[in-house]
Amino acid sequence: MNAEIVAVGSEMLTEDKVDTNSLYLTGQLNLLGVEVVQKTIVGDDRDRLTAVISDALRRSGIVILSGGLGPTEDDVTRDAVASALGCGQSFRQEISDAIAARFARMQRKMAENNKRQAFVIDGAEVMPNDRGTAPGQWIAAGSKIVILLPGPPKELKAMFEQQCLPRLRGVLPALFIRTLHLRVAGMGESDVDQLIAPVYTKYTNPVTTILAGAGDIQLHLRARCDSAGQADALLEEVSSQIAAILGDRIYTRTGQLLEEVVIAALIERKETASVAESCTGGLLAQRLTATPGSSKAFTCGFITYTEAMKAKVLNVPIALLEKEGAVSEPVARAMAEGARERAGTTYALSVTGFAGPDGGTEANPAGTVYIGLAYPAGCDVRRVQFLGDRARVRMLASQTALDMLRRKLR
Amino acid sequence: MNAEIVAVGSEMLTEDKVDTNSLYLTGQLNLLGVEVVQKTIVGDDRDRLTAVISDALRRSGIVILSGGLGPTEDDVTRDAVASALGCGQSFRQEISDAIAARFARMQRKMAENNKRQAFVIDGAEVMPNDRGTAPGQWIAAGSKIVILLPGPPKELKAMFEQQCLPRLRGVLPALFIRTLHLRVAGMGESDVDQLIAPVYTKYTNPVTTILAGAGDIQLHLRARCDSAGQADALLEEVSSQIAAILGDRIYTRTGQLLEEVVIAALIERKETASVAESCTGGLLAQRLTATPGSSKAFTCGFITYTEAMKAKVLNVPIALLEKEGAVSEPVARAMAEGARERAGTTYALSVTGFAGPDGGTEANPAGTVYIGLAYPAGCDVRRVQFLGDRARVRMLASQTALDMLRRKLR
Repeated sequence: MNAEIVAVGSEMLTEDKVDTNSLYLTGQLNLLGVEVVQKTIVGDDRDRLTAVISDALRRSGIVILSGGLGPTEDDVTRDAVASALGCGQSFRQEISDAIAARFARMQRKMAENNKRQAFVIDGAEVMPNDRGTAPGQWIAAGSKIVILLPGPPKELKAMFEQQCLPRLRGVLPALFIRTLHLRVAGMGESDVDQLIAPVYTKYTNPVTTILAGAGDIQLHLRARCDSAGQADALLEEVSSQIAAILGDRIYTRTGQLLEEVVIAALIERKETASVAESCTGGLLAQRLTATPGSSKAFTCGFITYTEAMKAKVLNVPIALLEKEGAVSEPVARAMAEGARERAGTTYALSVTGFAGPDGGTEANPAGTVYIGLAYPAGCDVRRVQFLGDRARVRMLASQTALDMLRRKLR
Repeated sequence: MNAEIVAVGSEMLTEDKVDTNSLYLTGQLNLLGVEVVQKTIVGDDRDRLTAVISDALRRSGIVILSGGLGPTEDDVTRDAVASALGCGQSFRQEISDAIAARFARMQRKMAENNKRQAFVIDGAEVMPNDRGTAPGQWIAAGSKIVILLPGPPKELKAMFEQQCLPRLRGVLPALFIRTLHLRVAGMGESDVDQLIAPVYTKYTNPVTTILAGAGDIQLHLRARCDSAGQADALLEEVSSQIAAILGDRIYTRTGQLLEEVVIAALIERKETASVAESCTGGLLAQRLTATPGSSKAFTCGFITYTEAMKAKVLNVPIALLEKEGAVSEPVARAMAEGARERAGTTYALSVTGFAGPDGGTEANPAGTVYIGLAYPAGCDVRRVQFLGDRARVRMLASQTALDMLRRKLR
């Protein structure tokens, strides 16, 4: 069965606020084997909302609404659902009394308009709200389910967990869902897709989704089966074919970040790393140290942003800087070797390049980056040409550097 | 005229990812006097998307789609818009050539499936994409406008600003909107609000919005008037009252980032800075160097993640580290002074603390950070206790350090 989520509230149609309740609801529904196929955000407008609900009910078996259950004229969700279903509403004294009692406990008097919250759609089951005044409603209308939840996240989550989940489990078939999150470094989205599409397009289960970041591609595989073993077997069947194609470009099967994989490998090998950065300006070190426990493997970073500092701090020969320029293969090598020697680490990464938008030469235009990796037996240097703005060039450079170290650690 | 925004992508129907492009688009549309009345999020499903577009076109004058313009089979936006409008598409060799040239610049070969991106809907104007491969499309169909934008935020923003805004201004009635983006460091959201609410609640024009980030509060003032002069006068009337209350806690009136303000002030004074980081692990240097032109003012960073490196690289006395511990006032002072001396800069910032989740002592629990600022006439150290996870503590520490330097530069 498919679901749609409708978030109600004009504040979510401003430039400041997104609906986030749907993230929680989606996670919960997915675990029940229910896919969310559409989400709509609509303002506090009765007619518009009525149309949205009617359309959603035509398409999907479950429609969940969040928000618009408050006491004011703006709160139109009850009325809109009743209109869309062609139902009436009736006033329930016991709900009004419960709201009044809640106000009394806070030593406040219930406002007259709170009585609006005591109206119940014909055929609905009332879901009491122990964290706020707005009760929810559960409506089974033929083969369709409509759920009205309050907008505040704490109220919504508690009500969904305590009152909707048990009801949904009662009407949905048992289903097992397993996921796999592969991540790939050093390839573009279209290259990855061209290679693996012949595999994943053969399967509608598991569903494969490709997400692209800067120098980082995520492959999400999700299998839905009657048993956990079956789901795992399906994931294994597809992921092993993808792994055979992408090989060691896959750096995780559990969704870890590249820097987490690198830090974990260093700790496992009881080895250490340092960095010497120019154009990435601390980004590489920042990523490595964002991982809790990274101090076991990362000891030191040198951000040498000028030629003078490259010479003074990393012992890069002045003559080399003058002859080759700071953005060059020999300087990247000298920076990596200098950092490794100075920090006394097993490995050292270096990055020197033109992040842009200014800088660059004819031979090395903006976007050119040299990346060095010094290790006990030597030093490798790669020259890479990135496209994009300053932030993207820096991110891609740090990604490439981390991936060079990861491969060395395999 | 009203607008709807349709975000296309199955990843936004998972529990991990919300559509955020619509926030930017909403802000831009509001500045043109256009209200966003509905937002829809739909997966990579041709039929479903076609229905969504048809419905939106019935309701609203402007429909903006983001995402689904990539090279893969998953990318169905072009096809769905063509179906909804009842139009055909044609292949444009010049677009295919431009994409191939982009790949050639990256020394890569264009994949065959990128040719999908060279199809143009009949009657559409092509909007070139200088930051990615997917061109956008602008379609004026009768009284309706349909806009296809790429999903990656940077591509979408650049294309909207450069190519959609001028076109929209051409078809919409003139309205003068002026904005002011004040930013405040070193205060919490509720403290700021409590102080300035008596001012801004007196005005419905300009509209004031408060946005809270880690250690950074943004105040957005937006005035809408028939003339630019009227709007500017309104902004001045309100902002001068706010400035009188918040004083030098306001670090910009033009929305600049704190690090940009610091770099600009250093350059103006022809002075330089370096950093010595422990728990922020490069984040402070990374923020300072993210600004183009920062090499004029920032020369060097030392990320000393171990006691040994603090001693070796920054000349922090071993005896001091042993007696006081690495997270202490005297060590923060020695780190700042060591960095300033080693890098030969006018100023040096230091950060040492427990970012968490592990580490910390009874006297200095996780979240405790010492921040030093060495300058020609001395060295100041602040002890700060932050709440939150590792990423938040690191961000707050870097923010506090930058603000200490900003105040010294005033």
